[in-house]
Amino acid sequence: MMANDAPIATDVDAPPITRILADFVAAHPSRGWDASVDRQAHRSVLNWVGCAIGASRHPAVEAALAAATELAPGAQAMILGRSERLDIASAALVNGISSHTFDFDDTHLKTIIHPAGPVASAALALAEHRRASGRELIDAIVLGIDVECRIGNAIYPDHYDRGWHITGSTGMLGAAAACARILELDAGRTAMALGIAASQPIGVREQFGSMTKAFHIGGAARAGLMSALMARHGYTASRRALEAPRGLMQTYSTKCDWREVTDELGLRFEISFNTYKPFACGIVIHPCIEGCRQLRDAHGLRADDIERIDLLVHPLVLELTGKRAPKSGLEAKFSVYHACAAAILFGQAGEAEFSDAIAARADVIALRDRVHASVDASIGESAADVTIHCRDGRDLHLEVAHAIGSLQRPMSDADLSRKFHGLVDPVLGAARARRLVELCGTLADADNVDALKAAATD
Amino acid sequence: MMANDAPIATDVDAPPITRILADFVAAHPSRGWDASVDRQAHRSVLNWVGCAIGASRHPAVEAALAAATELAPGAQAMILGRSERLDIASAALVNGISSHTFDFDDTHLKTIIHPAGPVASAALALAEHRRASGRELIDAIVLGIDVECRIGNAIYPDHYDRGWHITGSTGMLGAAAACARILELDAGRTAMALGIAASQPIGVREQFGSMTKAFHIGGAARAGLMSALMARHGYTASRRALEAPRGLMQTYSTKCDWREVTDELGLRFEISFNTYKPFACGIVIHPCIEGCRQLRDAHGLRADDIERIDLLVHPLVLELTGKRAPKSGLEAKFSVYHACAAAILFGQAGEAEFSDAIAARADVIALRDRVHASVDASIGESAADVTIHCRDGRDLHLEVAHAIGSLQRPMSDADLSRKFHGLVDPVLGAARARRLVELCGTLADADNVDALKAAATD
Repeated sequence: MMANDAPIATDVDAPPITRILADFVAAHPSRGWDASVDRQAHRSVLNWVGCAIGASRHPAVEAALAAATELAPGAQAMILGRSERLDIASAALVNGISSHTFDFDDTHLKTIIHPAGPVASAALALAEHRRASGRELIDAIVLGIDVECRIGNAIYPDHYDRGWHITGSTGMLGAAAACARILELDAGRTAMALGIAASQPIGVREQFGSMTKAFHIGGAARAGLMSALMARHGYTASRRALEAPRGLMQTYSTKCDWREVTDELGLRFEISFNTYKPFACGIVIHPCIEGCRQLRDAHGLRADDIERIDLLVHPLVLELTGKRAPKSGLEAKFSVYHACAAAILFGQAGEAEFSDAIAARADVIALRDRVHASVDASIGESAADVTIHCRDGRDLHLEVAHAIGSLQRPMSDADLSRKFHGLVDPVLGAARARRLVELCGTLADADNVDALKAAATD
Repeated sequence: MMANDAPIATDVDAPPITRILADFVAAHPSRGWDASVDRQAHRSVLNWVGCAIGASRHPAVEAALAAATELAPGAQAMILGRSERLDIASAALVNGISSHTFDFDDTHLKTIIHPAGPVASAALALAEHRRASGRELIDAIVLGIDVECRIGNAIYPDHYDRGWHITGSTGMLGAAAACARILELDAGRTAMALGIAASQPIGVREQFGSMTKAFHIGGAARAGLMSALMARHGYTASRRALEAPRGLMQTYSTKCDWREVTDELGLRFEISFNTYKPFACGIVIHPCIEGCRQLRDAHGLRADDIERIDLLVHPLVLELTGKRAPKSGLEAKFSVYHACAAAILFGQAGEAEFSDAIAARADVIALRDRVHASVDASIGESAADVTIHCRDGRDLHLEVAHAIGSLQRPMSDADLSRKFHGLVDPVLGAARARRLVELCGTLADADNVDALKAAATD
């Protein structure tokens, strides 16, 4: 305790948001929101289950499962897409990892948090173990996502700019909130669950491109679940763990806009602003993919028709996805050049189009090398300007204001179902996938998660 | 990924310390250091075991154990001082919590890290499970503590000043290093273990005074152990997870002195600078306690003899331990007034002197209220100036330059043994405590930890 004590952040008058959020999570009525919120919760679950099953045989998942198995875990909870059972904490970890491994999960655009991963991975494991109802599970997910994204709203973008992977560093709070709800903790113990979780932010952005990026989601799920279990048994934390001058938020962010946490709490739900990716890569390049795909379909273009593709893009596109020569499928997700080539060659950019084999294919590389991108500060983050110069002399041009999957152009239920089948059919078959679409869509009516488990696991 | 990207820290030329530390941990020869380093390692283990057993029936430990038990854990590893067995990750958590619960563990003074807790809690659990030898365990602890404290040296004090509890936010790296060593991971996988751990810093200072402070130590132990297990099974992280611009260190500290990590690596060992507390509270008030105790013993003072005690102290003393009227034993640890009253009344300030009952005793409160402390900027952090005004008119004065337990005046082996008995006798009895002193002192010669387990658990 012999520090040269010079605090960085000192808002000593911060409102008591740990207590406010705990009261909200513990006391808000079941389904105390519009039908549209409930519908978005079911869409979020469907998308999350699809991503987790789709990636359930990935080496990252195998490695995490092997490590968890070294703990000789009890067989308490399902692993989506697989036959193994793990203890609830390890199940939260592994499902969280698989749901983010393809980078294909949901996005809360205001904070770029991937909301469902940490919250649903923890909540499903606990719901299965406690035999909670579908209604209780959906309630917990809505409330958990609200806590997670409101904290994110308060600290974004400063917190993210510092280097934190915001999904992991807010997700443990959402997971703790959801689990506290399922455990029916009172407001006091819910505050302790949030407080214990507040000491466990997970993830730095340097990990992007490695398996540890997906670990952030699973690790946050596990941390939140264990925080709620510890609080249930009387473990204590500071009552101001989130907001105090040396609490989490002032420690890891200079921006702390408390009103983002409290304004319209219980009236506006952040899950309403959740979006789903049509393409299996960072959303920053979705407008470029969309532009290429639309021009391809409108003009029947093939790779051989194309001399050169010129993109005008927002600065972040090249900062985040500027890899000219990706050497693997994972690296290809960070290459706007590869993504546009795939969109032309295959008409889509799902997980299959970001495989190692596709990244190494000669025709992909040849077209990729004819894609050129320039930063234009006048282009918005959700927009792109695409020009395709054809070998026959035509110049085809398209401005994309908002890609499909944005808040302005949301994926329809049919789009989401198609995406789900693309992820799940190769793993569990089309019949099981259809059954899962139905079960996820009606989850709130289920007495428990047994039917989901039967359909989602071997 | 739509951030307004304005990096805070941008040392893009940082040396490759993740790789450097991984090479060191994987390749440094067994016992590749002076005998004094080995001796300090055994003293650190003894002190850590004593603290953990002493607190093993505390409500914080009971709560953590109950939460871990909800996972239906395998019976893989011992819980010091108890009969239960848990999986290795949960055992690392619970032993880490108990070892810090009394705030009586070791201190690396340059960083105020409590080194053994995260590292030994993880290493012992894994060593038991893998049937590692005592030599392998000691090697892992020396190397793990070196990694932990060198990272701490690089970022202290800025990192601590921001609000991080540095033991939890560096401890997961030490625990990962120690576990990678016990698992005999090669340098590449050791780098991955450090990398996965680099996404899991634990703990903010707002938690001081709650059970979550001790969780930071146990949580770091668990995180490091699981990181090593995941790396063993092929889980990957960034190869520059520690040092890159958006890696851990530049994300959570503005000060990053890379030479503190690399200078004399393998030649100078940070465990050499470990110290042990003679008093069960923050070391910042140890000089005051020492002064009161010495004057008491030299002059045969009793509470009734004393009119008033005047302390001149370093500014941190009042900032950290200025509670005038502590309402519990835990709060009393943050009261220089209580601590000095206890030193006079009981001649010591062990865990017993910081109980709820002692904090509430009328004679303690009466004397506590006669203790007065003033900040004097000329007083060093390890010093205090104590004047006792007696009712018979005598003014007794003592300047304490360094309290017992400091690097300048280390506790002798006999002092440590006495402290150990004070902690362990009430839990396991004096005979078992004597056996444990012997076993901890010769741990490097043991074929495995079976004998330690037999003596340390019910």
